[in-house]
Amino acid sequence: MTQSRDEFAIIQRYFCDLTGQDGVVAGIGDDAAVLAIDAVPQLVMACDTLVASTHFPQRASPAQIATRALCVNLSDMAAMGAKPKWFTLALTLPPELASQSWLQDFSRGLAQIADRYNVALVGGDTTAGPLSVTVTLLGEVPNGASLLRSGAAPGEHIYVSGTLGDGAAALDYLITGSDTGAEVNQRLEEHFYCPQPQIELGLGLRDFATACIDISDGLVADLGHICEASQLRAQINTEKLPIHPDLGQFPDSQVLQWALTGGDDYQLCFTIPENCTDDFAKWAQSMRIPVSAIGKLVALDAHQPVVEIDGRPAPVDKGGYNHFR
Amino acid sequence: MTQSRDEFAIIQRYFCDLTGQDGVVAGIGDDAAVLAIDAVPQLVMACDTLVASTHFPQRASPAQIATRALCVNLSDMAAMGAKPKWFTLALTLPPELASQSWLQDFSRGLAQIADRYNVALVGGDTTAGPLSVTVTLLGEVPNGASLLRSGAAPGEHIYVSGTLGDGAAALDYLITGSDTGAEVNQRLEEHFYCPQPQIELGLGLRDFATACIDISDGLVADLGHICEASQLRAQINTEKLPIHPDLGQFPDSQVLQWALTGGDDYQLCFTIPENCTDDFAKWAQSMRIPVSAIGKLVALDAHQPVVEIDGRPAPVDKGGYNHFR
Repeated sequence: MTQSRDEFAIIQRYFCDLTGQDGVVAGIGDDAAVLAIDAVPQLVMACDTLVASTHFPQRASPAQIATRALCVNLSDMAAMGAKPKWFTLALTLPPELASQSWLQDFSRGLAQIADRYNVALVGGDTTAGPLSVTVTLLGEVPNGASLLRSGAAPGEHIYVSGTLGDGAAALDYLITGSDTGAEVNQRLEEHFYCPQPQIELGLGLRDFATACIDISDGLVADLGHICEASQLRAQINTEKLPIHPDLGQFPDSQVLQWALTGGDDYQLCFTIPENCTDDFAKWAQSMRIPVSAIGKLVALDAHQPVVEIDGRPAPVDKGGYNHFR
Repeated sequence: MTQSRDEFAIIQRYFCDLTGQDGVVAGIGDDAAVLAIDAVPQLVMACDTLVASTHFPQRASPAQIATRALCVNLSDMAAMGAKPKWFTLALTLPPELASQSWLQDFSRGLAQIADRYNVALVGGDTTAGPLSVTVTLLGEVPNGASLLRSGAAPGEHIYVSGTLGDGAAALDYLITGSDTGAEVNQRLEEHFYCPQPQIELGLGLRDFATACIDISDGLVADLGHICEASQLRAQINTEKLPIHPDLGQFPDSQVLQWALTGGDDYQLCFTIPENCTDDFAKWAQSMRIPVSAIGKLVALDAHQPVVEIDGRPAPVDKGGYNHFR
């Protein structure tokens, strides 16, 4: 489909020179983008949609919507060990929002993240309709080096990056408006709209990890995907779960639930063989990337839960959508 | 972002084994797809969104929405001279539509087109929200062989594939419900929901054409893009415009307007140097692909319209969105 004049004008005006154009032979302005690749890598392709009132509140600023849309997609690249390169943007916008100021703010947010992670916007489509944003990202990975969910083995250690539960705490703050203090409020809001995709960690994990996933639906659910794909059982030790001091003001049981089953953390959960853990710890320290070993993988017997927490079956996760209405 | 359980179940159930998986190292079911490429081609990436009530009527069947979404995206690959390979699907669906029968019908339509054009669904995202479909397609093209809009030169011939005006006639039929006879009605509806992307022609045009675009906003608007990108003026001869006999029942002036400024034809418009036209004609004939020479390109002087029809400036095209409400 060719971009119609109105759409083309919007793309030209607000999005065209938004991002670095490394490897872009022809970007925005033709029927499709043409992209040059240097060697023969494998490509990694992922797409995610954010819908207003489901994935972000209606009151979110255009820049906040943009940063979140790109960050959650970049998180998928991190989880695959891929170097993100190019993305397309499908922006559906109600006519009443299609103002210069809205689009400027949105493109400012997009450019900020594209710049930080060196990804190029290479095409897209703007349409009239209920507000939603779909980003499709393309990345590269050396042949066979991508981090799948299916590569883990018994005896391996389970790690997570950063801290857990911040996504759920942020969601709680955004939905209930609970007052957690100005500084904490700001950090939680920042975490929600601008979660930090663990790109650098993902690239490094190619040398160490056997399986990897990003935590968007909560640790238990996402670690469960690794277990199912690798046919293993995970044993988590809750004392090892990394929790940010900011969450100290909430009841322990609440924080634990957030850390285990809350979504939107966008940290990586990954598995590392016993004989690599020392080298990995050194590497992570040298890169100043905080990581925590939280448990181990064991063989899966029939009728056992795939995730065990302190020796007990994990509670059934709720998963599903966030609803901001 | 990881797929949540509900989303994952939908993708697994309705979309997983939908398409051939040539070159797919890891498809649906991980954070992102991993794709293997054989040589060092250039990649072509395009995305398009269809929104209910804007790009298709609410009464459209799920299969019709799916075939249209994939076909209009494939048309972009044709216009670039690219071989389409892989696509992601972002499907936003109101909860009341998320039934087994809706999804089965949608996936049936998607599989039909994916199968016909040998493209693999490699990932996607399903979300709850107002009905819309975003397809992002990835294709390959040999280094430097893509058909851009900017390569045309003065003296070259302008061609279109197939017939023009069918898209606008189909739109007219779908919006007004005008009775054009059962057989014609069916062809128009088929044209709207299942426009034939000119992939084979696009691949062949790599050897002949200097510029190419697909006609989605109407000949004048889209040929205008070639003229602007190539800094040339197009002179069209309306007697040469290919019109399907089915449109004979409409007034000539109506048909001419549809052929010139109506959208949704999804034919290719392309330019060929004088010394290649004979070889091209032979090739097209051997492939049984109908093409028509409709005019020539000349140098552009300042203050001249970029498109001239029978020696007069082209009417300003209306472009923009289709609205089915």
